[in-house]
Amino acid sequence: MAIKIAILGFGTVGTGLPFLLSENKEKLAALLGEEIVISKVLMRSEETIEAARKEGFSYDFVLSVDDILADSEISIVVELMGRLEPAKTYISQALAAGKSVVTANKDLLAVHGSELRELAKKHQVALYYEAAVAGGIPILRTLANSYSSDKISHLLGIVNGTSNFMMTKMSEEGWAYEKALQKAQELGYAESDPTNDVDGIDASYKLAILSEFAFGMTLAPTEIACSGLRSIRSTDVEIARQLGYVLKLTGEIREVQSGIFAEVSPTFLPKKHPLAAVNDVMNAVFIESVGIGSSMFYGPGAGQKPTATSVLADIVRVAKRIQNGTLGKNFNEYSRPTQLANPADVMNKYYFSVETPDTTGQFLRLVQLFTSENVSFDQVLQQRGDGERAIVVIISHEISRTQLAAVIEKLQQEADFDLLNYFKVLGE
Amino acid sequence: MAIKIAILGFGTVGTGLPFLLSENKEKLAALLGEEIVISKVLMRSEETIEAARKEGFSYDFVLSVDDILADSEISIVVELMGRLEPAKTYISQALAAGKSVVTANKDLLAVHGSELRELAKKHQVALYYEAAVAGGIPILRTLANSYSSDKISHLLGIVNGTSNFMMTKMSEEGWAYEKALQKAQELGYAESDPTNDVDGIDASYKLAILSEFAFGMTLAPTEIACSGLRSIRSTDVEIARQLGYVLKLTGEIREVQSGIFAEVSPTFLPKKHPLAAVNDVMNAVFIESVGIGSSMFYGPGAGQKPTATSVLADIVRVAKRIQNGTLGKNFNEYSRPTQLANPADVMNKYYFSVETPDTTGQFLRLVQLFTSENVSFDQVLQQRGDGERAIVVIISHEISRTQLAAVIEKLQQEADFDLLNYFKVLGE
Repeated sequence: MAIKIAILGFGTVGTGLPFLLSENKEKLAALLGEEIVISKVLMRSEETIEAARKEGFSYDFVLSVDDILADSEISIVVELMGRLEPAKTYISQALAAGKSVVTANKDLLAVHGSELRELAKKHQVALYYEAAVAGGIPILRTLANSYSSDKISHLLGIVNGTSNFMMTKMSEEGWAYEKALQKAQELGYAESDPTNDVDGIDASYKLAILSEFAFGMTLAPTEIACSGLRSIRSTDVEIARQLGYVLKLTGEIREVQSGIFAEVSPTFLPKKHPLAAVNDVMNAVFIESVGIGSSMFYGPGAGQKPTATSVLADIVRVAKRIQNGTLGKNFNEYSRPTQLANPADVMNKYYFSVETPDTTGQFLRLVQLFTSENVSFDQVLQQRGDGERAIVVIISHEISRTQLAAVIEKLQQEADFDLLNYFKVLGE
Repeated sequence: MAIKIAILGFGTVGTGLPFLLSENKEKLAALLGEEIVISKVLMRSEETIEAARKEGFSYDFVLSVDDILADSEISIVVELMGRLEPAKTYISQALAAGKSVVTANKDLLAVHGSELRELAKKHQVALYYEAAVAGGIPILRTLANSYSSDKISHLLGIVNGTSNFMMTKMSEEGWAYEKALQKAQELGYAESDPTNDVDGIDASYKLAILSEFAFGMTLAPTEIACSGLRSIRSTDVEIARQLGYVLKLTGEIREVQSGIFAEVSPTFLPKKHPLAAVNDVMNAVFIESVGIGSSMFYGPGAGQKPTATSVLADIVRVAKRIQNGTLGKNFNEYSRPTQLANPADVMNKYYFSVETPDTTGQFLRLVQLFTSENVSFDQVLQQRGDGERAIVVIISHEISRTQLAAVIEKLQQEADFDLLNYFKVLGE
């Protein structure tokens, strides 16, 4: 007997699967007792089929998903097309046809995850998507299985490799944002339109998925506060370094008394924090929990082989569920009503960089403004001005999101003060 | 319905279970649909029962394991007594009585794992032991599940918290071995007889278990080369630092053409290596594999709550297997014949610290000795001598274990040369 699978989309990740199936043939046979066979591959056009044949792939290539849906021998459909449509339609049709689905499509899962999971449950098939978050790091399965006995209070991740590559270059080489972006594009890490990576959108999709596994709560992407890299100046990176921090784009989910709060933002991380050493395109997820305490999972966030390895691990898992007759279980079985935190309960230190007129009394006015919102200071640096304008850098003590919003509003109302930047500052 | 468990041994880890069961009551109920109930607890004596009652525990305490074995409602036995006997007998009896077993007993698993797993398989029950390796890090389950689709070539771990605490103090504070050990004993990390921790024995037990999950091969503890901390001098630590390394006690398993090689030893780790930043009592396992590439799993290696969390995650897993009717599966299903590497195939750089007479020609003789075994040098430092004796530090290029043995033998034959220390040196 063989486990027959179909692949939708035969791009970078898809073409990695044959390599892994052959490289791990004996191990997979030992684990499953039967072979995983790529039975059909959905392609876009005759030309792409021709190209794949030229590269030496000799699968049963098809141009219509119907050929796959109608094939009763195919039990697992692997969706690797990306984007929302037609992936969503094809996945829905596969689930409705009683086929289990493995996908790496984070956009789709972040936006339509609930609907697809419902559909899988209804048809008693599996829907797995380990590769959707932090490509090569088995974080979703670990959260679902090994944290079943634990209560997570805080998840902090570097889950976008492109932006982490850029931040590493900006921190370690002193590069400006533009140069870092250009290099990322040259190396193929960033697309010509880098919006999803540099504005934190990609990271927020991953946070939405992580929230379900770590906190049992579904977040719409709009419920995740999101700011990206575009505003970061070399001077912010340099000040972070001087004060003992590293500036990174992080995704954070925290549970406080009133609920959960999720945010993607540039963040000052203490140099000793385990995430501070996560560089280049690597990803990592750091977890604080009642039972385990601190733990971290580190690995590649993308790439052909890492992503294909996660996809194949899902295929193996689904194959075992088929063998064991336990298909109808959700990938993640932890679910409770979503409750968003009250902003007044979400506390952080913040970095503020404010340009002021370089005249007597301005510093006092700035201090008065912060004090009027009960914001006190952990560190204050006044940088040498040019005679006309000075820059004041403030690291506040812990303040709430409400206080943060009030301070920002007041700064924006004052014509003299120019709030150049503000970033979250984490403790160790 | 409830899942009834019995606990053998109600010490640090055992008394952590009630806390976690209560803290995660709702989550566990959501995951399992039934409650986990501590039905009976095996104690050593009436006095320990009395003491537990005084601490507010009101379980059904028993003094004979027979009361647990005979209770047909108990489906999972949790062994937390440690050491080989009577743990082995009780676990064997529980398995034979058709009860699944969860244990944190690494010594037992390293020494008698195969026999116990056979017994579990024979009686179609589960034997889980996530907590036996790196307490709070879910490394075994992750290897078993998420690396099912991958081929691991190299596993490098910091898996003994006590020795890592000591090495951290020796590296960061410049403490001598004796002072670091004394502090570890004061803090309760090291026992009055620290042999198991400082000689690498504890780490080698963990490697034996990791070898099964990562490489599918069973290693007897005697098949793991093992050296510990006792010989490390402050000057070794300092030279490591000067050359851009951190000295750590690592456990390593590597697969080469001819088989696997496992070793616990002090190791020069490049400062940029992800493991180099793992400090104090924290543990981490770094993995290189064909599919994922580099990944690392970081967390606490011991402690009441982390260990109890891993134990409870196992209990949850076994409970699910009971519900799903899939009990007879091994925790780890990857197994192949053990094949040990030929020492001539295992290549590393090495650090040598050699004391020589401080006279003309000795350095030449030393270089000739190394060259005669085809060992060339990456770095050589001659430290200032006292007029009588000089110390020469050598970092070799990659050499095999066979070459290493030959060089060491030659050095020991030369009355003039005193080999003070030699350690493995890893690349990035």
